[in-house]
Amino acid sequence: MQLYDLNLSGNCYKVRLFLSLIGQQAELTTVNLHAGEHQQADFLAINPRGQVPALVDGELHLGDSQAILVYLARRYANDAWYPQDAVQQGRIAGWLSFAANEVQHGPGSARLGKLFGVPIDQLAVQKKATATLQLLDTQLGNHTWLAQGSQPSIADIAVYPYVALAGDGGIDLAPYAQLNAWFARIRALPGYIDMPGL
Amino acid sequence: MQLYDLNLSGNCYKVRLFLSLIGQQAELTTVNLHAGEHQQADFLAINPRGQVPALVDGELHLGDSQAILVYLARRYANDAWYPQDAVQQGRIAGWLSFAANEVQHGPGSARLGKLFGVPIDQLAVQKKATATLQLLDTQLGNHTWLAQGSQPSIADIAVYPYVALAGDGGIDLAPYAQLNAWFARIRALPGYIDMPGL
Repeated sequence: MQLYDLNLSGNCYKVRLFLSLIGQQAELTTVNLHAGEHQQADFLAINPRGQVPALVDGELHLGDSQAILVYLARRYANDAWYPQDAVQQGRIAGWLSFAANEVQHGPGSARLGKLFGVPIDQLAVQKKATATLQLLDTQLGNHTWLAQGSQPSIADIAVYPYVALAGDGGIDLAPYAQLNAWFARIRALPGYIDMPGL
Repeated sequence: MQLYDLNLSGNCYKVRLFLSLIGQQAELTTVNLHAGEHQQADFLAINPRGQVPALVDGELHLGDSQAILVYLARRYANDAWYPQDAVQQGRIAGWLSFAANEVQHGPGSARLGKLFGVPIDQLAVQKKATATLQLLDTQLGNHTWLAQGSQPSIADIAVYPYVALAGDGGIDLAPYAQLNAWFARIRALPGYIDMPGL
């Protein structure tokens, strides 16, 4: 397997973290976004969305961090990471959407603006980020893991990075007790690895 | 099954359309967003994200249109709508993220601004929408259905509504020949139903 990667991307970290948790390895290739490598024809042939991460596994070319988690879980991991029953798959799909929508456009965007200087309406984004963190804190007050199973699933891995990196976007995580307890549970998983900023 | 619904929401239509395609029925309850019903405690108990659609099926409360498609496909539909193999599930998950991210924040947001007067940076959104439509047009030049199978999947149903409704956001769909051909294929499916604006 080859993972097209960027060290500081939370979406790439999501995949590196999951690979480590399930004991799988991928060869990493750094994509230089500053040099525009993600918009060059050879990368767009791998991922037409022009984003990292992207995974190549045999004939398969797959972009999107959520999609890569689903693929890796289904192909290489214990079923507990992505159980096969309809209720669990539905719940997990809801958190994958939440990661692509509220988390990406809340704490993810706040970090893009603050850390990388991307022009962003910080007031609107901070409001979205706060609502996102509050919702998660409430959910995690009632459940050990996001998708309500007795074990972590790819839902937790999809949501964790940009939430845990919210400090990079100028957001104080200290008030969210349940979130911090969940961070600690994730960090205690066998095979857990970190990234810069965590 | 009960579907908490709004006639003009493309995300609700997504679920109504899929239910019709698989020959299932749900009792519809209209949520009055103008009156703030989606922020009231009894609705938040069903969907903490405070969004429509939300599905209640026995004990299950499930928000998020993508999540509801996954659940319904897995529970009630022919496997072709959401095949069980890792490659197809990975590819479909990528399009579900694309629906929650690029489609929702591109043509979906353009429509919110134009049709419902939500304050939005129309220039940025139109740029995002154009990139989204171009990517889809290219993909559909090479594939009959989005996830590359020989039959439609929930990927097509997740992406279709806000793309087909792009005209409501002031976007001209005429230049996208492959997109229009795909619209025609979807509209020819047995059980297809329309919504206002299509």
